[in-house]
Amino acid sequence: MEDGHIKKLEEYFARFPGVGPRQAHRFVYYLLWQNSSIVSDIAHTILNLKKHIGQCKNCFRYFPKDASGQYTLCRICSDSSRDNSILLIVEKDADLENIERTGLYNGNYFVVGGLIPLLETNKSRKIREKELLSRLTHEKSIIELIFALSAHVDGDNTVDYIKKILKPHMEKNEIRITVLGRGLSTGSELEYSDSETLRNALKNRS
Amino acid sequence: MEDGHIKKLEEYFARFPGVGPRQAHRFVYYLLWQNSSIVSDIAHTILNLKKHIGQCKNCFRYFPKDASGQYTLCRICSDSSRDNSILLIVEKDADLENIERTGLYNGNYFVVGGLIPLLETNKSRKIREKELLSRLTHEKSIIELIFALSAHVDGDNTVDYIKKILKPHMEKNEIRITVLGRGLSTGSELEYSDSETLRNALKNRS
Amino acid sequence: MEDGHIKKLEEYFARFPGVGPRQAHRFVYYLLWQNSSIVSDIAHTILNLKKHIGQCKNCFRYFPKDASGQYTLCRICSDSSRDNSILLIVEKDADLENIERTGLYNGNYFVVGGLIPLLETNKSRKIREKELLSRLTHEKSIIELIFALSAHVDGDNTVDYIKKILKPHMEKNEIRITVLGRGLSTGSELEYSDSETLRNALKNRS
Amino acid sequence: MEDGHIKKLEEYFARFPGVGPRQAHRFVYYLLWQNSSIVSDIAHTILNLKKHIGQCKNCFRYFPKDASGQYTLCRICSDSSRDNSILLIVEKDADLENIERTGLYNGNYFVVGGLIPLLETNKSRKIREKELLSRLTHEKSIIELIFALSAHVDGDNTVDYIKKILKPHMEKNEIRITVLGRGLSTGSELEYSDSETLRNALKNRS
Repeated sequence: MEDGHIKKLEEYFARFPGVGPRQAHRFVYYLLWQNSSIVSDIAHTILNLKKHIGQCKNCFRYFPKDASGQYTLCRICSDSSRDNSILLIVEKDADLENIERTGLYNGNYFVVGGLIPLLETNKSRKIREKELLSRLTHEKSIIELIFALSAHVDGDNTVDYIKKILKPHMEKNEIRITVLGRGLSTGSELEYSDSETLRNALKNRS
Repeated sequence: MEDGHIKKLEEYFARFPGVGPRQAHRFVYYLLWQNSSIVSDIAHTILNLKKHIGQCKNCFRYFPKDASGQYTLCRICSDSSRDNSILLIVEKDADLENIERTGLYNGNYFVVGGLIPLLETNKSRKIREKELLSRLTHEKSIIELIFALSAHVDGDNTVDYIKKILKPHMEKNEIRITVLGRGLSTGSELEYSDSETLRNALKNRS
Repeated sequence: MEDGHIKKLEEYFARFPGVGPRQAHRFVYYLLWQNSSIVSDIAHTILNLKKHIGQCKNCFRYFPKDASGQYTLCRICSDSSRDNSILLIVEKDADLENIERTGLYNGNYFVVGGLIPLLETNKSRKIREKELLSRLTHEKSIIELIFALSAHVDGDNTVDYIKKILKPHMEKNEIRITVLGRGLSTGSELEYSDSETLRNALKNRS
Repeated sequence: MEDGHIKKLEEYFARFPGVGPRQAHRFVYYLLWQNSSIVSDIAHTILNLKKHIGQCKNCFRYFPKDASGQYTLCRICSDSSRDNSILLIVEKDADLENIERTGLYNGNYFVVGGLIPLLETNKSRKIREKELLSRLTHEKSIIELIFALSAHVDGDNTVDYIKKILKPHMEKNEIRITVLGRGLSTGSELEYSDSETLRNALKNRS
């Protein structure tokens, strides 16, 4: 019974994160089932999303524009009480938000926008390389760069790549590069810990 | 960092079937990440959904309208080769589609649009009661009504309720009412079957 | 640190149903951790298991022997109030127990002791074929044989095989052979039912 | 159909780690199904377990006794090439084995035998307190004590308790106490890391 229109919308929904074809199908029927005013409001909210949400020119995360639409910096980047000597590099907005929620970090952020898979050949295409270099060149206050990427192969590969391209700049400006500490995360059981985690936990004992 | 616009869209997505607040949040960021032409196309596809999809006046399932938009019956209800002596009652479009996929049923359908929870007081509000009565009154060819609702408390309660309200009509017109057979479904292990299933399996042995 | 003794016990435990090597290993340490009197009691309970538990000469299920150790029939087979015109064939004791728990069946049982995989060549080795034939030959009261095997390929294959070998006997003695009813089991959702189940549910509607 | 003997064995099996009543039941039937010589061998292997396996007088882990049965130290504790200046404290044998498997640690061990729950009143009953004190008193070579307990509330509570009771001894003998490093374990995603882990990861960045 599928026609082109339903199929097209199903295909769009199936590309949403974590949605399979079956759920995409149910989304379409959910919308058909709603009354027209709600469906119309959902559509217009999506349509206007980018008008209301801007991308910070400094850290590249998304943030709500004000009425005038003229601000180009997000709340954190406009906050003069943040410590502008530290820059923490995250992959995506959700990582940044999780760190902000802890209330433990008061420096600035840079959303690098992706990770570089181990076998990727076009590495610079995957991350905001030029934008990061440009920020480091212009923001002289930075004395430490913290990598807060996920603790797996692609995360480590991304750290290695960025370290390499930043090396001349870092040395010239005496910027310290650090990586989030590795070891036992909360709840880890010794019996089931992998050997890489045990190696880090032994090395970083204190 | 949430503003009203993101929050509003998150709340809409969180009402989609099987979507929690965390996934709704990721949907919004997924859209922010897409380029504007795709987001605009998704929004317009949703906006036009109801223009392209009609609801069959006969069986109440959704179906694609043709260019003229004038047809009011779905493909199955317009198909004169279907056996119009049998009417199979399902809860929703997905159930109908699953039965069609088997290729085992050649009669007609009626999508009753919901189930009646055991403690529901306003029973007629939950299902297309008037529409079903009207169809049975006008379609004199029907000699069997098959209930194909899910095999749980709410499904059984719905069957009981509809049987009761249809009783006078059924008796006057000598229409037979049947319910899908109960027993072991494919893959059932005896050791783990519940006693209601075993009761049906013993009773319906053949 | 494994020595032969621990390894041997681990290998025994790893053959227990549903136990992997890791859990088997934990079983051994659990025992090492217990005090000697408990470990000794566990060992002796296992050692004496077969002395206290007999196998019914009639239905082949396991049952507790009495003090004299002289009875050879289980509680059900010794119960003269059971309906000895019906014999229900199950794969294993757990299936029989599950059916007894429903309180819905008052006939007798035969535990066939296994299922025949579809590609098995030595079919008679997998089940108590001779014992079943012998019982049917001697128990003249039986007028119905119910197959209560699991509803999957191996179960169906076993039914087919036994039906074939029993055919001459069944026809001569006018014994009826039935199989547990197939259809929607409790909780089945129409949307997710497989086509074999829907075929049975449509065929067995009532 | 349960008699006392089956029930007793089921109850023993149900206390095995990770085994529920249903699986315990299946274990008993598994044994009934095996031939007598295997069941007898399993029982005797359990019966002789403690005769063949001793507990090391030094680190308290289990180890295979030799034929003479006279050795009282395990392979690691008898190994003069191990670094006897470091003592690593683990909860149980499985933790010790996991660390040995990495090949990254060459010091000695002490199996403390349990963790102290946060609300435990009789704390010393849960762990080998006296034995640990005695070992530290006699083994003058030790200069570092590493706690390698699981990274959760009970583990941390146990570390706190032992640190307190060892304090006088540690200070007098200038023994350093360390705890395995905390931070992101292998595979950790920033987006889903808890705030305690992020706090440690930020603090221990390097």
